[in-house]
Amino acid sequence: MGQRSDARQKMVQAAQQLIREGGYGATAFSDVLALSGAPRGSVYFHFPRGKAQLGMEAAEAHAHEQVEIIDRAAGESRSAAQLIERYVNLGREGMVTGDYRRGCGVAPLVTEGVAQESAELSETSRRAFSEMTDRLVGHFVAFGVDRPAARSLAEAVIAGVEGAMITSRALRSPAPYDAVRAALVSHAATVSRRTASRSGS
Amino acid sequence: MGQRSDARQKMVQAAQQLIREGGYGATAFSDVLALSGAPRGSVYFHFPRGKAQLGMEAAEAHAHEQVEIIDRAAGESRSAAQLIERYVNLGREGMVTGDYRRGCGVAPLVTEGVAQESAELSETSRRAFSEMTDRLVGHFVAFGVDRPAARSLAEAVIAGVEGAMITSRALRSPAPYDAVRAALVSHAATVSRRTASRSGS
Repeated sequence: MGQRSDARQKMVQAAQQLIREGGYGATAFSDVLALSGAPRGSVYFHFPRGKAQLGMEAAEAHAHEQVEIIDRAAGESRSAAQLIERYVNLGREGMVTGDYRRGCGVAPLVTEGVAQESAELSETSRRAFSEMTDRLVGHFVAFGVDRPAARSLAEAVIAGVEGAMITSRALRSPAPYDAVRAALVSHAATVSRRTASRSGS
Repeated sequence: MGQRSDARQKMVQAAQQLIREGGYGATAFSDVLALSGAPRGSVYFHFPRGKAQLGMEAAEAHAHEQVEIIDRAAGESRSAAQLIERYVNLGREGMVTGDYRRGCGVAPLVTEGVAQESAELSETSRRAFSEMTDRLVGHFVAFGVDRPAARSLAEAVIAGVEGAMITSRALRSPAPYDAVRAALVSHAATVSRRTASRSGS
């Protein structure tokens, strides 16, 4: 059981890495097997519904990782602006240390149109972005931002980081992360001041 | 000559549409021919360097379209904030009227790793994003924003719109555009006030 689930987890991790590097369509089972070291027979044993299942689990794993990163960043922050700053900086760091080779583990399902053709994959990509957004909303509200403003701010953060991942890779420069961080932190400070002045503090 | 270049242009347009809908890898010459109505023999006549050449020209066409849209939006605006508002709204409109089926014509070259494997495609995607960014910088400077702030603002706009394209498609909702617009317009207003106060106006 331990060994079996270990091989399964390694295959999901390998798929996640390959999808982040080269997209969904270009990620073949044979590459996943080569990278994870899993035996050939394990593919349909662990993923009876084939590549779509592996792609969905990789996207879910990516979203869960992002939620954990958001939680860690929130634990070290005392305001919405600080959380945004830390979260964007962690993305920037990963992009630079990864030599601009790894993007999002969910976005390829969308940009390659696979989410459009499969209800399951569509639901997976929708849920993945919703989970990250909702987690940010919860932390922003805990930091005193009112809920509608927190939702809008969270949606801007997720979109901003998604976009920075693309343009930063294209330009091989961390500048888009710095620009996105500056805009979002400035907007978060404005939103927080507005909330504070309305509550009379 | 007229007819020849017309077929060529239709093939680039068809490739652009297919790449925006389903990515680069999934776009086959046969689909480009079917959509454009061009004869089979025209592929290697017009694009002797094959699919990479067609992909590069489609990405260039996409960047040129965006530059034209930016220019039009700037012509109807009197401030950086207004230009951003119009530009984001035009993207939002296209996404909603296109039923969330069309993304960026450049991003797939990046997310599918093809730009990483080909120096030509890498240069094409870098230049495409640089052209859009530079155009915004020019307009922001004309609206009175100082150049370093204008560059950072432009990088945030391009990343924000790129990200909104992805999360909006995934969620089948225009909310990410609204959120990105709110954050960028608020930040642009702050930046413009800062510039105005420094110049003593």
